Amino acid sequence: MQTVDLNSDLGESYGRYKLGRDAEVIPLISSANVACGYHAGDPDVIRQTVDMAQENQVAVGAHPSYPDRLGFGRRRMDMALDDVTNMITYQIAAVAGFTKDHRLHHVKPHGAIYNAAAKDRELALAICRGIQRFDPQLPIYGLSGSQLIVAAKQVDLPYCSEAFADRAYQADGTLVPRSQDGAVLTDPAQVAQRAVKMIQDQAVTAITGERVPLRVDSLCVHGDNAAALRIVKALRKALADANIKVQAF
Amino acid sequence: MQTVDLNSDLGESYGRYKLGRDAEVIPLISSANVACGYHAGDPDVIRQTVDMAQENQVAVGAHPSYPDRLGFGRRRMDMALDDVTNMITYQIAAVAGFTKDHRLHHVKPHGAIYNAAAKDRELALAICRGIQRFDPQLPIYGLSGSQLIVAAKQVDLPYCSEAFADRAYQADGTLVPRSQDGAVLTDPAQVAQRAVKMIQDQAVTAITGERVPLRVDSLCVHGDNAAALRIVKALRKALADANIKVQAF
Amino acid sequence: MQTVDLNSDLGESYGRYKLGRDAEVIPLISSANVACGYHAGDPDVIRQTVDMAQENQVAVGAHPSYPDRLGFGRRRMDMALDDVTNMITYQIAAVAGFTKDHRLHHVKPHGAIYNAAAKDRELALAICRGIQRFDPQLPIYGLSGSQLIVAAKQVDLPYCSEAFADRAYQADGTLVPRSQDGAVLTDPAQVAQRAVKMIQDQAVTAITGERVPLRVDSLCVHGDNAAALRIVKALRKALADANIKVQAF
Amino acid sequence: MQTVDLNSDLGESYGRYKLGRDAEVIPLISSANVACGYHAGDPDVIRQTVDMAQENQVAVGAHPSYPDRLGFGRRRMDMALDDVTNMITYQIAAVAGFTKDHRLHHVKPHGAIYNAAAKDRELALAICRGIQRFDPQLPIYGLSGSQLIVAAKQVDLPYCSEAFADRAYQADGTLVPRSQDGAVLTDPAQVAQRAVKMIQDQAVTAITGERVPLRVDSLCVHGDNAAALRIVKALRKALADANIKVQAF
Repeated sequence: MQTVDLNSDLGESYGRYKLGRDAEVIPLISSANVACGYHAGDPDVIRQTVDMAQENQVAVGAHPSYPDRLGFGRRRMDMALDDVTNMITYQIAAVAGFTKDHRLHHVKPHGAIYNAAAKDRELALAICRGIQRFDPQLPIYGLSGSQLIVAAKQVDLPYCSEAFADRAYQADGTLVPRSQDGAVLTDPAQVAQRAVKMIQDQAVTAITGERVPLRVDSLCVHGDNAAALRIVKALRKALADANIKVQAF
Repeated sequence: MQTVDLNSDLGESYGRYKLGRDAEVIPLISSANVACGYHAGDPDVIRQTVDMAQENQVAVGAHPSYPDRLGFGRRRMDMALDDVTNMITYQIAAVAGFTKDHRLHHVKPHGAIYNAAAKDRELALAICRGIQRFDPQLPIYGLSGSQLIVAAKQVDLPYCSEAFADRAYQADGTLVPRSQDGAVLTDPAQVAQRAVKMIQDQAVTAITGERVPLRVDSLCVHGDNAAALRIVKALRKALADANIKVQAF
Repeated sequence: MQTVDLNSDLGESYGRYKLGRDAEVIPLISSANVACGYHAGDPDVIRQTVDMAQENQVAVGAHPSYPDRLGFGRRRMDMALDDVTNMITYQIAAVAGFTKDHRLHHVKPHGAIYNAAAKDRELALAICRGIQRFDPQLPIYGLSGSQLIVAAKQVDLPYCSEAFADRAYQADGTLVPRSQDGAVLTDPAQVAQRAVKMIQDQAVTAITGERVPLRVDSLCVHGDNAAALRIVKALRKALADANIKVQAF
Repeated sequence: MQTVDLNSDLGESYGRYKLGRDAEVIPLISSANVACGYHAGDPDVIRQTVDMAQENQVAVGAHPSYPDRLGFGRRRMDMALDDVTNMITYQIAAVAGFTKDHRLHHVKPHGAIYNAAAKDRELALAICRGIQRFDPQLPIYGLSGSQLIVAAKQVDLPYCSEAFADRAYQADGTLVPRSQDGAVLTDPAQVAQRAVKMIQDQAVTAITGERVPLRVDSLCVHGDNAAALRIVKALRKALADANIKVQAF
């Protein structure tokens, strides 16, 4: 029986500011990327999110970011590589401190640093070193085929190849930038069918028509709003119909 | 043979801002209170400080604070007790992530929260719960005889009673406020002799003349400047002369 | 014809975090308290809020706070008085920089510092000095009869006495703490009638039955949610029916 | 009689963290770039720095930065242009609030945003718009010949062309990167003579030997440490000997 992991970003509230519909999406996923306080989240939110994930048998991962709450971690920063390494260790350790056994299931870099590291080997290696300082066996989630995956292989860090069923791909396996037409798919049925096919084929059809091989260990889903939740529900149903089991990587 | 722990606050630099003479004080102490990034410190500083402490066989503790870098954690804040608990867990976990085994030797609250919790049982209990969430066996350092010690006993958290050889005491065992004359002792020889006597007697003479019983597991020393370092050196010599061994609690 | 000012807190969003229904409440009020970036708000939000207020002929005031975004400025901090003075100048100057003529209509302290200064003359004076450094003629909004008003009189700073139609009062003219039963009124019709009576009588009936004289230059209203907006609309109608004109202080 | 402006970065302390020898350098300069709280500085430091500058008849300018205290504003961030514009307005308005007449003499972008805008016209224009929102007549300081100057001309913002006597230039008028040999000159006499010649010739000799025309309205000097101060003193003497008057732009 085929399996796939469904991961989602959780714990993005901050103080009085509420974001996301965590309680609604958590029963639908198998692994959670918990914001670490750098782009979102605070100690109370982290505790509640970790507790909620553990109560729902959802695997707890850390979702470290650039230190940029105002920009929600979506702005690239030119950080020294050692600084990157150490801020990754700091953030994942802080979240791990709230889990039952101080262990995490995975680490998924957030936003701008995820995108930057997908293309920048040195940055990706700096992230991997930050994870390894904390736990040499802790898997990293990265865009399938990206430099994050290449770097993890290079330093023998476990990794999980992630794909996006609601995003168009280019022929080289990278995502079509959001600024382009057709970059984001919003029809739940279409996304669900596309997801099933991506998992079964371990490949995707590029926006320009080419077939692109793509390892799909995990799919990233969203719980920000009602439309996003409809997509996840359609996806769960399609996966069940296709006899693909959802379980943490 | 009698023993005493010497603890000092380390890792208080931040980005381009340098503070403290950590490399000079570290060979003289047995345990380090490492700033966690809330009042001072950053991931790079934490990493370097933990590494330096471990290389010098100095026990690594966390030094959590109110979230107030501008005020260096020295301004009391009216935080909800749950918020205190969670921010303590967050900070100590973050520092623990840099140690070899992810374990800490102790936790010492910093500045305003240390002083406030010395007098406020509920606040002290909230701190203890934050430590216990991370590690039920992790000792807390608190002012000898204060509510921090009372709270630790109440919830079965290990504790270490700390005294200050360079501060005058009141008859009730609390410190004379810095604003009063005679509150702070600055003569190295005097501080050193006073320290030896405090350890040998497990008592101190109050500024008003009374003998005050005082459990002294650890002495807090400083490495901010040349004068502070002279005191620590005089203290080390006096302890050696008195056959008191310096070792981590 | 009697007049009253209606003021409301605006511009409390931050980065990706949205808060308040500013566009809906702004046509209903005469003066806006614009968050300055310390408890809420950011430069983009400030610019948009100031622009929107000016387009709606709503007077622009600054809403300075303790430096505490995580606690939304609702946690008292023990700050040195000079620090208070300077952080007030900083915050109001920053907001004033976005108005057409670099001038503000008023300053209203936010949250914990508003409440603390209502009872603490020294703190209230420190706030007044911060305003005076920027503009000696810039009015402060304070709880009617509180130390903020007393301090403003003492240093010859213009002031505006503010009342709350949706809050119960104690016999000494202070607000009933939110934690007590009956502290907050939620029925739009009741709040509206109470407001009219407070303005006409320049007095309020305490929760314990006494008549309390109360200068009412401005009423504080809220635009956080649909229920709050219903109250403001009922209030506007009741004021119109009573021939009380809404205009900035 | 020829004149030149000498500008220096001041007010870079933060809370307990002290940086720079402001009191020693201020009698030697004609204009001060005051940190605005984003990369350095806090309201107390700003107030003291503005007061000290005004007492010394030194012109007060604002020194806005990326929002990055940990990185001291030295790390490039990919910010939206509107965000840049608004954060510039915010920062300069905050500092202006502390001057006697709420006016500034100039604005000089700090660190990474200064360097980035020197090469990026759109970013430079976004900075200029932020200044113009505050004061259309407020001059910007930029690297002589850079996109900051080009942008200022384009939008009719006054500008001041700045040069560095202690830095080597490339043939295209840009600075030799600090990472290259010979990029920074440290001999006070050499820097002083070079400065005089740059002012007299309004040109500089590139590291590769070419003569590069260079408008020199202001020279940037430093007061971080004793060596830097020695350079400024040598420079003052050489300027006096050459009959070049130091005065604010």
